[in-house]
Amino acid sequence: MSLTRTERLLRACRGEPVDRPPVWLMRQAGRYLPSYRAARAGLSFLDTCRDVERAVEISLQPLREVGTEAVILFSDIFVPVLGLGVELDFQPGPLIARPIRTRADVEKLAEPDVERAVPYVFETLRRLRRVLEPEAVPLLGFAGAPFTLAAYLVEGRGTRHFAELKRLLYVDPDALRALLARLTELTVRYLEAQIRAGAQVVQLFDTWAGILGEPEYRAWALPAQREIAERLAGAGAPLILYVNDGAHLFGATLESGADVLSLDWRVDLAEAARRAGRRASLQGNLDPCALAAPRERIAAWVGELARAAAPARGHVLNLGHGCLPDTPVEGVRAFTDAARNLSR
Amino acid sequence: MSLTRTERLLRACRGEPVDRPPVWLMRQAGRYLPSYRAARAGLSFLDTCRDVERAVEISLQPLREVGTEAVILFSDIFVPVLGLGVELDFQPGPLIARPIRTRADVEKLAEPDVERAVPYVFETLRRLRRVLEPEAVPLLGFAGAPFTLAAYLVEGRGTRHFAELKRLLYVDPDALRALLARLTELTVRYLEAQIRAGAQVVQLFDTWAGILGEPEYRAWALPAQREIAERLAGAGAPLILYVNDGAHLFGATLESGADVLSLDWRVDLAEAARRAGRRASLQGNLDPCALAAPRERIAAWVGELARAAAPARGHVLNLGHGCLPDTPVEGVRAFTDAARNLSR
Repeated sequence: MSLTRTERLLRACRGEPVDRPPVWLMRQAGRYLPSYRAARAGLSFLDTCRDVERAVEISLQPLREVGTEAVILFSDIFVPVLGLGVELDFQPGPLIARPIRTRADVEKLAEPDVERAVPYVFETLRRLRRVLEPEAVPLLGFAGAPFTLAAYLVEGRGTRHFAELKRLLYVDPDALRALLARLTELTVRYLEAQIRAGAQVVQLFDTWAGILGEPEYRAWALPAQREIAERLAGAGAPLILYVNDGAHLFGATLESGADVLSLDWRVDLAEAARRAGRRASLQGNLDPCALAAPRERIAAWVGELARAAAPARGHVLNLGHGCLPDTPVEGVRAFTDAARNLSR
Repeated sequence: MSLTRTERLLRACRGEPVDRPPVWLMRQAGRYLPSYRAARAGLSFLDTCRDVERAVEISLQPLREVGTEAVILFSDIFVPVLGLGVELDFQPGPLIARPIRTRADVEKLAEPDVERAVPYVFETLRRLRRVLEPEAVPLLGFAGAPFTLAAYLVEGRGTRHFAELKRLLYVDPDALRALLARLTELTVRYLEAQIRAGAQVVQLFDTWAGILGEPEYRAWALPAQREIAERLAGAGAPLILYVNDGAHLFGATLESGADVLSLDWRVDLAEAARRAGRRASLQGNLDPCALAAPRERIAAWVGELARAAAPARGHVLNLGHGCLPDTPVEGVRAFTDAARNLSR
């Protein structure tokens, strides 16, 4: 079987036969790469995203330098909330000037018009696709899931306990429901526009849904994920869902309608493959910290992951979390090399 | 059945019949209480711990003010590492002047002599026991589990990803093994001394073990927990084990030998009760953020928790995590009131 990188990824996402799992890494374009730090030098995060040429360059770096087999848009899950008229900064995590904590705050949000608010995102995707198409390298888009966006919008910043968000959830559920409805609409439009601009696969990051128990996850995170999956079903790009720290939610994520579930290292991949059956492909799930280990150890782990996931309908090799600033470049190369050396 | 508070807690821990679950709250003596803030005013955290009179006063505040049914020593899981000669400060999280990252660093640690290093801990416990004995209120001691202490000692501070710790785990496992052996010895001696000083139940906090997948948990956290449980088995105080964010590790924690497993809100209490059988009692597991809800909601949740845990051999009502600085005092009172209104 001779597959292009695009065919391999799309087939793995859809659960069609492949020669071996494709490989890419969450946050593969990041601070661990010297060329990334050079390209970013002096520029704020948002200004880097707005500079289409630079965003294209950064997105392509891991393809050229560490051998990943897919390119993902350089951006942040928080960028599209600019389409709601929210004042946003990165220091370096997202910082919201005026947190949204009441129904009235929600009502004041603008009607989402992403094409107008963040045109550079789509221009970056269009240019990337033009570069990648001749090489048959797949292009991924992504968005933050509504629950995670809401968590930040309510808190104003990342926190450990998300007490303000949960206060809303327990005390003023209608306000949170209204906020999630707005964010779901935003996310659908944003991902649709990304697909129109050339994204062939899209990943939904529910970074904070893991703070919820299963009943709350089913009430507050899953419905938005499902609506997004349903509304994107006809758009032609497989949907990957990543719930960080979501080992306890795996059964529920199977009901999301996502084509692929991206798992962190806390999930037993063999058991997940058994439980997923034909419902979803799996992505993951090496601990990014494990990339500090010697090359041979990394290769052995890649082999173990591929074997564990083999019963799944499809498997995309990836980490269980994004690359960290101190992830060794050599470790990333060892990871992608090991993937290429696999044969099923 | 007419039980004292001490009898109720001890029986629930051991899986003997009780009239209703006893109730206390993790971090019940904390910043959410105005009297705590007043007692702390101007004093550093460590100086407060060292001031026995003040530590006794703070430990007793929740008993008098919010109706909890057990008193836990006011201290921090990090205090006993002073017994290893480690330079420690709180700002407000623990901060280690010289992180421990090599085998040589481990060798330099002092032989643990807790009675000499932190005598105020045991004096506080002795005084508390004298006050509580006539009221038949139980006294809890506690310690950090070796993995969690190691995580801080290696990083030097709390972090999100614990990349240095994991580097050691993946790259220099012998150094980490040596560190864990030292910390296990420290923890056993520390808890034994607490029990001698009057603690009737002790809780082991493995705050960071939830960052591990199950194979790594079994390799790096569980063995120390088991050794502690085995060596304390004859000491006469039930052992509670709390693994924060450990829903994916529940099956493995059942092998720890702890009398009680303290669970966070991500764990389905009914399913945990079924899986635990006669092996362990359960503690928990309301989300502390839920204490912001109206009184009636809190009472309803307490009823649901008690019903869900009813098939367990024993149940101690508690939160799934410590009280937060913004936890409403009224919510804590509603929680303990609801517990007292339960009848099984």
